[in-house]
Amino acid sequence: MTSSAGPGSHTYQAPKGTRDFYPSDLAVRRHIESAWRSASIDFGFDEVEGPMFEHLELYTAKSGDGIVNELFSFRRAGGENDYALRPEFTPTLARMVAARAGSLPVPVKWFAIPNMFRAERPQRGRLREFVQWNVDVCGVEGAAHDVDVIACAVLALERLGLRPTDVEVRISHRVAIARMLAALGVADEKTGDAMTLLDRRDKLKPEEFAERAAALGLSADAVARFDTAARATQRLSEPLAALAAKIGVPEAEFAALDEVRAAAERAGILEWCTVDVGIVRGLAYYTGTVFEVHEVSGAERAVAGGGRYDGLVELFGGPKMPACGFGMGDVVLANVLRDRGLLPADGATLMPRPDAFVVSAGGVSAGGDAAEALIPALLMRLRRAGLHARTTTKTTKNVGKLLGDAGKARARFAVILGAELADGNVAVKDLDAGTQSVVPLGELESSMRTRP
Amino acid sequence: MTSSAGPGSHTYQAPKGTRDFYPSDLAVRRHIESAWRSASIDFGFDEVEGPMFEHLELYTAKSGDGIVNELFSFRRAGGENDYALRPEFTPTLARMVAARAGSLPVPVKWFAIPNMFRAERPQRGRLREFVQWNVDVCGVEGAAHDVDVIACAVLALERLGLRPTDVEVRISHRVAIARMLAALGVADEKTGDAMTLLDRRDKLKPEEFAERAAALGLSADAVARFDTAARATQRLSEPLAALAAKIGVPEAEFAALDEVRAAAERAGILEWCTVDVGIVRGLAYYTGTVFEVHEVSGAERAVAGGGRYDGLVELFGGPKMPACGFGMGDVVLANVLRDRGLLPADGATLMPRPDAFVVSAGGVSAGGDAAEALIPALLMRLRRAGLHARTTTKTTKNVGKLLGDAGKARARFAVILGAELADGNVAVKDLDAGTQSVVPLGELESSMRTRP
Repeated sequence: MTSSAGPGSHTYQAPKGTRDFYPSDLAVRRHIESAWRSASIDFGFDEVEGPMFEHLELYTAKSGDGIVNELFSFRRAGGENDYALRPEFTPTLARMVAARAGSLPVPVKWFAIPNMFRAERPQRGRLREFVQWNVDVCGVEGAAHDVDVIACAVLALERLGLRPTDVEVRISHRVAIARMLAALGVADEKTGDAMTLLDRRDKLKPEEFAERAAALGLSADAVARFDTAARATQRLSEPLAALAAKIGVPEAEFAALDEVRAAAERAGILEWCTVDVGIVRGLAYYTGTVFEVHEVSGAERAVAGGGRYDGLVELFGGPKMPACGFGMGDVVLANVLRDRGLLPADGATLMPRPDAFVVSAGGVSAGGDAAEALIPALLMRLRRAGLHARTTTKTTKNVGKLLGDAGKARARFAVILGAELADGNVAVKDLDAGTQSVVPLGELESSMRTRP
Repeated sequence: MTSSAGPGSHTYQAPKGTRDFYPSDLAVRRHIESAWRSASIDFGFDEVEGPMFEHLELYTAKSGDGIVNELFSFRRAGGENDYALRPEFTPTLARMVAARAGSLPVPVKWFAIPNMFRAERPQRGRLREFVQWNVDVCGVEGAAHDVDVIACAVLALERLGLRPTDVEVRISHRVAIARMLAALGVADEKTGDAMTLLDRRDKLKPEEFAERAAALGLSADAVARFDTAARATQRLSEPLAALAAKIGVPEAEFAALDEVRAAAERAGILEWCTVDVGIVRGLAYYTGTVFEVHEVSGAERAVAGGGRYDGLVELFGGPKMPACGFGMGDVVLANVLRDRGLLPADGATLMPRPDAFVVSAGGVSAGGDAAEALIPALLMRLRRAGLHARTTTKTTKNVGKLLGDAGKARARFAVILGAELADGNVAVKDLDAGTQSVVPLGELESSMRTRP
């Protein structure tokens, strides 16, 4: 937890799996959050937030006691209630919708960018604290609304510079898969087991996978077709008849997926989407469309995951209410962006640029005031006018050195209080254009506003 | 924790002292945070963040084990480390500065808007989870830098609509107060006790206060002057000679405070400031200027509090490094803003306004497509262009009703896909101006951008 940093002192570390965001680190995070937020707002989702921790039973109610080991849970000294840092936002969202289900205008279209906590072993793409964009629509059914949330994710990815050649939305549909399984000969009561097996396709050895498929009661031929299905992917733009033929089931079994295809086509996001029969999503509460966003090579964990969960609001005390949504974490996404060269090597270039860097070159005003004495009031004036204004703590009057500092600060303009001050003027250097002009002190704000 | 909401179901509540932010609630919080963030950036502070929880010892190191009861602390199942949800940001900041003290450019000017957690009994102005704006400057000494952080707070308050008639910055200075106490006859080793007593002036009965003042070793006359000092306030713009005369100590004892006055005058924030000898700040680590922002009537808890703490970075393993900063919570501030009529009755009016509300009045395109089928692609096009675009789930073709929905959504423009669609046009109604025009479908984005 601590390490020695010299006699009598020690340095403190951030807890394992958490992050310190220095200014250039936070600029990267804000860049990602800004794409998330603007896409959400442009799609008509309203932002919400909830508590950072919830009653523990909010999580065990949905996921069983097994989840407790994955949570940071605690009890206040002398208190009676068990709490847990939130590991996901959906239970909070469902609780909030349930509490006001009678009065909220439908559809409820909400987004959130909450911090999340999981007591896992930290590894690439997984931390103990991360930020997760959540987008949900409640109260409406149908593929068009499933595609609405998917398209919102796509817009954010586009704004971050990603293209369909970088990431893809892998889509499946639990109703379609259940029908496909039935057509393959899986009995109704084995549907859940078969979906769990599909979900684990990449984690099991081929022979183990085949063995478990046979245990579903499938014939040898059906086991082979089940294996084909588990690995079956195609562009969502391709006819589902091709998928059906490959697996050897009637095309009609994929009708639910075809509705998603049609809606994605209408919304203009077809090129981002693939069908992936092996996408099931581990969580038991999904009831229809399910999807994950992946880097195309499959090298990273999922960038996002979600789907339709029509029973969830009811589970948290609300009415029966259809719902669909997804979560997208910042950690894997940042890895993908970095791998694709879509994040600057130095996050500082994403930080807000100063408008003005005000320095004294030793000027004296007509009234006899030294430039230094005028700077605090001038800075406050610029800041009150909504300009980002900085100065230096250096006492040098060397204009070259001062301009160098202004450049390092990435300022747009250097404001130099020099000899012109005696006439009530200052020199303003446009650091991007390299040009310099003399501006009356009283017109400084407007001179910097009107320039590009 | 839960309450019955019908047979077989129950509703879940947010933990006591925490908040659910529905869209109109979060809009209010974002309004406040936006003033904080813009003031910080305009002042040249860079944003940072840290973990939501820290090693428990980060807090006990500074505040002793006594603080543990005020914290939400926990240990991961099977883990060895004790953690605590952060009750304040300063230890995280000091830890982060200490870790990179050798490489950070000085002055370090940082701000943060972190969530904070305190295991207190919730009451007006105090919750268990809140947001606290933190502004700090490290590595520089002097009243000008103390005033830099105070002026940043003032700018945010101004942007929220507050005036010096609403709130005031009550300022004192520990060095000045220590010298005043010495002049009153308080022995050096009693200075800490005397400051604690000043800090408690409003919590003790007059006779108890006098008794404890006498216990500091003061004469009857000095007790009376100490009492006067504890309640002494004046505008910071007034000469400190007046304050010194009232208390009966030499004016020179207030020299440190006079530097703050001069710096506040130079920065143009003098009218916001008062001297308040009773402002000491409870925390032991302050070393110079101390201040609190209060609603002028004193009816609420402090809106903000801070000061200079030159020893703190060293305490967390860094070098000796002067520092000054403050924290401003969202809860008391929102109460003050609400009391002064500076928050809208309905927070929804602070939510982002849609640019376009797109509806079908039953139009059919020249190609024979029904308007409904065109809406998803049109919405995506507008959103890709950076416009906030919504539609309705209603199937009515009654334009009056649809316009009513657009108005309720606070949209700037209603886009109506009606009879004009056959000619490739749509009707665009400016809902603020009440005017309507016909626009070619292909020019929709630019038509909405160019209007105010």
